[in-house]
Amino acid sequence: MPTLPQQPAEFHVFDTSLRDGAQQEGLHLSVPDKLKIAGYLDELGVTFIEGGWPGANPADTEFFRLAKDLGLKNSKLVAFGATRKAGAKASEDALTQALVDAGTDYICIVAKSHEDHVRRALRTTLEENLEMITDTVTFLRSQGKRVFVDAEHFFDGYRAHPEYAIKVVQTAHDAGAEVVVLCDTNGGMLPSWIGDIVRAAAETGANLGVHVHNDTSCAVANTVAAVEAGVMHIQGTFNGYGERTGNADLSAVIPNLQLKFGWQVLPPEQLAELTRVAHAIALVAHQPLLGRQPYVGQSSFAHKAGLHASAIKVDENLYQHIDPALVGNDMRMLISDMAGRANIQIKGEQLGFDLNDRELAARITEVVKARESEGYSYESADASFEMLLRDQLDVLELPFTVDSWRVFTEERDGTNISEATVKLTAKDARQMVVGEGNGPVNALDGALRAALIPAYPQVADFELTDYRVRILDEGYGTDATVRTLIDTSFDGHTWTTVGVGTNVIEASWEALSDALAYGIITKLAD
Amino acid sequence: MPTLPQQPAEFHVFDTSLRDGAQQEGLHLSVPDKLKIAGYLDELGVTFIEGGWPGANPADTEFFRLAKDLGLKNSKLVAFGATRKAGAKASEDALTQALVDAGTDYICIVAKSHEDHVRRALRTTLEENLEMITDTVTFLRSQGKRVFVDAEHFFDGYRAHPEYAIKVVQTAHDAGAEVVVLCDTNGGMLPSWIGDIVRAAAETGANLGVHVHNDTSCAVANTVAAVEAGVMHIQGTFNGYGERTGNADLSAVIPNLQLKFGWQVLPPEQLAELTRVAHAIALVAHQPLLGRQPYVGQSSFAHKAGLHASAIKVDENLYQHIDPALVGNDMRMLISDMAGRANIQIKGEQLGFDLNDRELAARITEVVKARESEGYSYESADASFEMLLRDQLDVLELPFTVDSWRVFTEERDGTNISEATVKLTAKDARQMVVGEGNGPVNALDGALRAALIPAYPQVADFELTDYRVRILDEGYGTDATVRTLIDTSFDGHTWTTVGVGTNVIEASWEALSDALAYGIITKLAD
Repeated sequence: MPTLPQQPAEFHVFDTSLRDGAQQEGLHLSVPDKLKIAGYLDELGVTFIEGGWPGANPADTEFFRLAKDLGLKNSKLVAFGATRKAGAKASEDALTQALVDAGTDYICIVAKSHEDHVRRALRTTLEENLEMITDTVTFLRSQGKRVFVDAEHFFDGYRAHPEYAIKVVQTAHDAGAEVVVLCDTNGGMLPSWIGDIVRAAAETGANLGVHVHNDTSCAVANTVAAVEAGVMHIQGTFNGYGERTGNADLSAVIPNLQLKFGWQVLPPEQLAELTRVAHAIALVAHQPLLGRQPYVGQSSFAHKAGLHASAIKVDENLYQHIDPALVGNDMRMLISDMAGRANIQIKGEQLGFDLNDRELAARITEVVKARESEGYSYESADASFEMLLRDQLDVLELPFTVDSWRVFTEERDGTNISEATVKLTAKDARQMVVGEGNGPVNALDGALRAALIPAYPQVADFELTDYRVRILDEGYGTDATVRTLIDTSFDGHTWTTVGVGTNVIEASWEALSDALAYGIITKLAD
Repeated sequence: MPTLPQQPAEFHVFDTSLRDGAQQEGLHLSVPDKLKIAGYLDELGVTFIEGGWPGANPADTEFFRLAKDLGLKNSKLVAFGATRKAGAKASEDALTQALVDAGTDYICIVAKSHEDHVRRALRTTLEENLEMITDTVTFLRSQGKRVFVDAEHFFDGYRAHPEYAIKVVQTAHDAGAEVVVLCDTNGGMLPSWIGDIVRAAAETGANLGVHVHNDTSCAVANTVAAVEAGVMHIQGTFNGYGERTGNADLSAVIPNLQLKFGWQVLPPEQLAELTRVAHAIALVAHQPLLGRQPYVGQSSFAHKAGLHASAIKVDENLYQHIDPALVGNDMRMLISDMAGRANIQIKGEQLGFDLNDRELAARITEVVKARESEGYSYESADASFEMLLRDQLDVLELPFTVDSWRVFTEERDGTNISEATVKLTAKDARQMVVGEGNGPVNALDGALRAALIPAYPQVADFELTDYRVRILDEGYGTDATVRTLIDTSFDGHTWTTVGVGTNVIEASWEALSDALAYGIITKLAD
């Protein structure tokens, strides 16, 4: 066993999902979105939450104004900004003043640490850049702030001009920065390159942090390498959001440090919230969470190969690197047409059903195989599998009965509309509802919910988070069989249902109505 | 600058997308899919393509039968299998024979190298496990095969019982395995743990390879660490597909070695195909390629921060870790930028239009960019591109005018019907037609054809051969933007049209009506 690094007396997990994470292409966070995410991060208990750049961005100014009322219990808010302009004074700089006015105890400012960037991008002298750092940090300190300095392009800067890069760290440290954060801004580093550079910077006596991007697919590894070399502050984002290839994914860095090094980064009971929080943030950020995302993805403890099923019965730890419960995830057996009776039994037991009866298990396996040969895929549709299981075990009580539905789409004078009608009975009351939408499935979704809300008001909070269509037998034109998968979320849980048919609307309807039925049966207290 | 590792005289890039990659939840590859992907991998020039497990899986047996006719130019096929059963003889083992029969020169067999797995999962003795390795390798060698051995759970095995793990490597090497591949099967390793273990295994004198999974989000970094410690063979998958969290992503490992270490893993002109091949594989695998996937993702060289814009003008290399052209990517990776003026001119000329006028070409490029930013993709829809070109050049004469269309789908008493109405004018005659079908698009297709046949009887022979739907912004539920692509064939010609909308029916209608209009304009003699 290798020697494990010791946890420093003080260690910061600094989340920048709301600032650097929001730089991701296609990711848009409103102020309420940001407030919600800050709440989740506080529940999890990261040390710092960087909220944005007040003054530079009106929405961020607003965020800091409203965040004061969040009542954060575990985390501290940080306002992000930059060193003052060349040739100016920090005390007279409007942006610096906006940072002070944000009202946080902590401020993180970015400073250039690469000679070429100072000369060519900032277009000032090396000396003036140092003076900008000293002046800004000193001023903020004089206003009672605690200051972190992000040394931008530090790793590239060190490799090109080591002396100047180190001088920047020294200057920030001497001016009173509590942590100097070494940034791999362009994301081009490899883990084996990180250690020596971190150790060189440590000779300044500064407390060091690290902030890296994922351009070599090594952001998590680079962060871990920096920790091994002695940094006491790590910056990253949840689910790895960020500009270009993203930032270091804290949902992987945190459990790596806690479970591989044995550190206490978070209290164990909060680490067990990791999966829930990662999914909740993904939901607010409107980004589907990749099934294979380490630690927190839906597939990250899933087993498919029949090869493994019998061995897993012996000892599941033979086939998983950690106990998934530690991060709030689950071991899942995938149900696929490759899967035999053993898989079905394990899966059934996980869902709380007794399938020890071999004959029963064999019969259900046959049903699953027959349905999968029609195009159903239960591997990725646990909720539909549970509905099938309940049906086979005669314990399925459907919360509503659909009498009929119809949907039409029409174009007239270049305008499209889709309109759906659903007729159903729920809790002995008949409902007849019309819904409109962007397309037929959206219209059906709206009508079905509206028809269910009188009997099950919480259905209004079911969120349809993903809808996927796959044509199974390409080459058959519009007459092909299609499979639709729908993800639905409610109260931190997400479930997937599947529908199949040659008619895409019929297949979507099946997945949709099963999604709502499953949610009502399993997620709502009676 | 750190010392860079030297490239070994022989170095293998071993792709297992078709075998281990296919273990990913939700990823289903048909035999034609696998043949297509093998073709792409060969174009790129990976050393080895592991195609599956012949004998264990009928589809894989079929793949190897058909793959013989692929005429691969750069890559060699490898059949995957396991050591023979305990207590049996390799020469009498049906699965071993199936490996031989697959007809590849190279075979890769998996062997257990973790004491606990031998005892508890395989349920045999440590000695018999070694004998299984020797017997299987020796037999395959006697059949003229070149053999690789995957040492399963090697890193965990070494940490728990180093002597036995090393003995497995030694045994495989002594029996004639050309490479022994150290596997992090459960994916729990960190880069700093890899080096010492690889160096310990190297003392056996075996050529070593590495095969890791991404459970700590370090698969790429762990592969690079193993390379730094001296392995001459790396296994991975394209886009990181694989069981649980996936395998090491070759689309990141290859450029890391080539561009960070200066190795020649692929000829530079083939490395420039990396982005194209990664996307082509994603398309066949039906997996959306994450925008922030390192090196090849659409966002991975995209800049959002206004902060950078002016600096990028000074020198774009200040803000990117490599020149994206080296991997066939682009600094502004919006789809629209794939279509520069030169491309449009070349494409236009191929279609027989004169686009030498720079201003005209620039204007058309702008239109294409605007449409692609809405979600259109002309790369795969030549017919729609030609329609757009004709429109811009004022030479588009539409063969019919649609007044309106509508389609409805309904379910009553468990039966589905879809019915469409189309009203249009063709050759001065108004047509009003109703069609039924398996789903709304099929019904629209039927009605539109029926309405066109009086004016253009040959439309009856237009065959709609493929219909594909892609959700562009997953995570938006049923409200997402979708792109549909339709292939139509007539008289030996096939053409593709595209439609986009938040309404799948509207998008399908657009592709459908363009498909028939294009066919009438270009394929029918007047």
